[in-house]
Amino acid sequence: MADIFELNDTRTHPVDVQRAPGLTRIVLSSPPANALSMAMMEAILSALRDAAADKTNRVVIIAAEGKLFSAGHDLKELTARRGDADRGRAFFAATMRKCSELMQAIVRHPTPVIAEGAGLATAAGCQLVASCDLAIASEEAHFCTPGVNIGLFCSTPMVALSRNLSRKHAMEMLLTGETIDARTAREFGLINRVVPPEYLGTIVGKYATTIASKSPVTVKIGKEAFYRQAEMGLADAYDYAASVMTENMLARDAEEGIGAFLEKRKPEWKGE
Amino acid sequence: MADIFELNDTRTHPVDVQRAPGLTRIVLSSPPANALSMAMMEAILSALRDAAADKTNRVVIIAAEGKLFSAGHDLKELTARRGDADRGRAFFAATMRKCSELMQAIVRHPTPVIAEGAGLATAAGCQLVASCDLAIASEEAHFCTPGVNIGLFCSTPMVALSRNLSRKHAMEMLLTGETIDARTAREFGLINRVVPPEYLGTIVGKYATTIASKSPVTVKIGKEAFYRQAEMGLADAYDYAASVMTENMLARDAEEGIGAFLEKRKPEWKGE
Amino acid sequence: MADIFELNDTRTHPVDVQRAPGLTRIVLSSPPANALSMAMMEAILSALRDAAADKTNRVVIIAAEGKLFSAGHDLKELTARRGDADRGRAFFAATMRKCSELMQAIVRHPTPVIAEGAGLATAAGCQLVASCDLAIASEEAHFCTPGVNIGLFCSTPMVALSRNLSRKHAMEMLLTGETIDARTAREFGLINRVVPPEYLGTIVGKYATTIASKSPVTVKIGKEAFYRQAEMGLADAYDYAASVMTENMLARDAEEGIGAFLEKRKPEWKGE
Repeated sequence: MADIFELNDTRTHPVDVQRAPGLTRIVLSSPPANALSMAMMEAILSALRDAAADKTNRVVIIAAEGKLFSAGHDLKELTARRGDADRGRAFFAATMRKCSELMQAIVRHPTPVIAEGAGLATAAGCQLVASCDLAIASEEAHFCTPGVNIGLFCSTPMVALSRNLSRKHAMEMLLTGETIDARTAREFGLINRVVPPEYLGTIVGKYATTIASKSPVTVKIGKEAFYRQAEMGLADAYDYAASVMTENMLARDAEEGIGAFLEKRKPEWKGE
Repeated sequence: MADIFELNDTRTHPVDVQRAPGLTRIVLSSPPANALSMAMMEAILSALRDAAADKTNRVVIIAAEGKLFSAGHDLKELTARRGDADRGRAFFAATMRKCSELMQAIVRHPTPVIAEGAGLATAAGCQLVASCDLAIASEEAHFCTPGVNIGLFCSTPMVALSRNLSRKHAMEMLLTGETIDARTAREFGLINRVVPPEYLGTIVGKYATTIASKSPVTVKIGKEAFYRQAEMGLADAYDYAASVMTENMLARDAEEGIGAFLEKRKPEWKGE
Repeated sequence: MADIFELNDTRTHPVDVQRAPGLTRIVLSSPPANALSMAMMEAILSALRDAAADKTNRVVIIAAEGKLFSAGHDLKELTARRGDADRGRAFFAATMRKCSELMQAIVRHPTPVIAEGAGLATAAGCQLVASCDLAIASEEAHFCTPGVNIGLFCSTPMVALSRNLSRKHAMEMLLTGETIDARTAREFGLINRVVPPEYLGTIVGKYATTIASKSPVTVKIGKEAFYRQAEMGLADAYDYAASVMTENMLARDAEEGIGAFLEKRKPEWKGE
């Protein structure tokens, strides 16, 4: 997607934030592992906050530099803290909380977040893909939750995994730690589409610009409602969704959009 | 399915209710859009209530006349109320509540409800299909939730969609508004089967008569239990299902059915 | 899998428990039906308890002798109690409670439980497969929940079914009672893999030994967390999973596993 993003000569570390009209592309740029160190998680969170604050932003893309999308938690950083007085407990807890905060920041982000997966995504890296609203991957992408192989079950990744994959598929990934290819990941519901590597940027760009062309207030209302109603029983979900939709009807963009549809013209969003 | 239903010379509007032994077929007959106006929703609800009250009815089929299964809410009817003193708020709220009532009336109906999808089902029309217990569609059927294109996110449709499709599939439909074909809809879990258009009526009829041949009290117990236990944690779901099954064992139809099975004869249901 | 299990000359009845290093294979050995009579359910539960108490056990396999994996509840045993003073109510309730206890004992078992499905699994037999963490089946395996055919809806089976299959697929099985083949069962999410019958034992053995090679304390932590977080909202699930993962980091096996990974050597699990 180099074409639609302003590319800097020098990438920033640990993430490189690229912008194009309406789009923010957060590139994990700490290859080869793109590990989710505290600094990396803070940097992604910061970029997500900036994108949320930018009133012109419509879609966030999370991509990565190199052959690994992300190898998950930074095991060296974690291991170094075993020498702390508390054997690392406070730092481990802070890391897991930060990871949970990051994943929920994606789910709660006012704009859709698309994962652009070119390479291997493991453990919390796989969780990062699962936590995005949409995920498009290259045919060369692979996914796994191999914590079980090193004595550390992928327990936070399972939260995102089990809300996307059916139970037996999630359990197979978590218990065996084995790697699945992009086609299997699509079949399991982890990703939306698999594309040839040379078209990955183009297809992700197509999804992003399609969504960026919609009314931002409408997308924000809808995304928030989606995850909230998903946790409710049917009757409560309908009560809630009906009230959301009533408010949405009264937004100026719904008036404009429905009017434009009935008059067979293109809508002009006011963003309110 | 003209063969098994009594066809009137004149179809009633906005829905045409056809009956065959044990079956009720509710046909949305307000082409081309079959929009879910207040009158249409009331008419479907009324037909569902009649079918529930008819002790001989075993299965409800919801079908539609024309190339569109249903285009969803009646945007002209809604837009006309923007001139109300409250800018339409009361009418919009009443519409969304009625829509939610309709969808839940299908889920709570004492008999199974099968969607027979011949054409395009959009927005609340797609929700209608998703809300049925089973859905069979023609190869020519298509599905979308395109509210996002007109500034009105498909928030009530998402309730039914997200309880049938995996998260990323539902989000793709809701965020892009794009149309999926019947085969994709089957892959996503929105529908059960895709059949050639010329066999749609026959296959739906086969499902309907198969289910109609079961004990109605048993089907009623099971359908109700299915949706109730789905909202519970595992331990509660098992406590509840175990008590449901104990009561079911004591029903005369279970005694007859199990007896017939052990004696290798055909059961004769008493319906109690 | 005869090769890796100690085979007795005489199989025990109603279940035959085989052991290999780290593995327990519980074989339903009451052919042809392998019905889940009270005695059968007690015997499986007892074998599960023994496996849980055996500190060397890492994985449980549930298999069956003969062409039927299990035909579900023992209808003759149930019917015989219709002559009780309470028309069987107390016995039926005890049976359904025992069945629920068995299925939950699988979910709560400290080691993963793999279903090895060679033949037809019906009703509570199908539920037994659905309740396992993983399920591998032969190409000749079939599955159904046909209670509706005999007036007794598969209400306890639906609890396991609806937590593995998408809603419309589960409803189709429950309402029609029809049989699906192994390939369809895989597509529906009921089982993980379909293999040629002659390789079933080998493939199940491969899964079992793969999982048995992991740290048992890690697998126990992860399996328990999986089912607990699945019943929570997203924020609670993350709070819980983050605390689980912090504790897991402090376990000796995580220290060993991560250390071994960083030092590129094979870990030696202490099991704590």
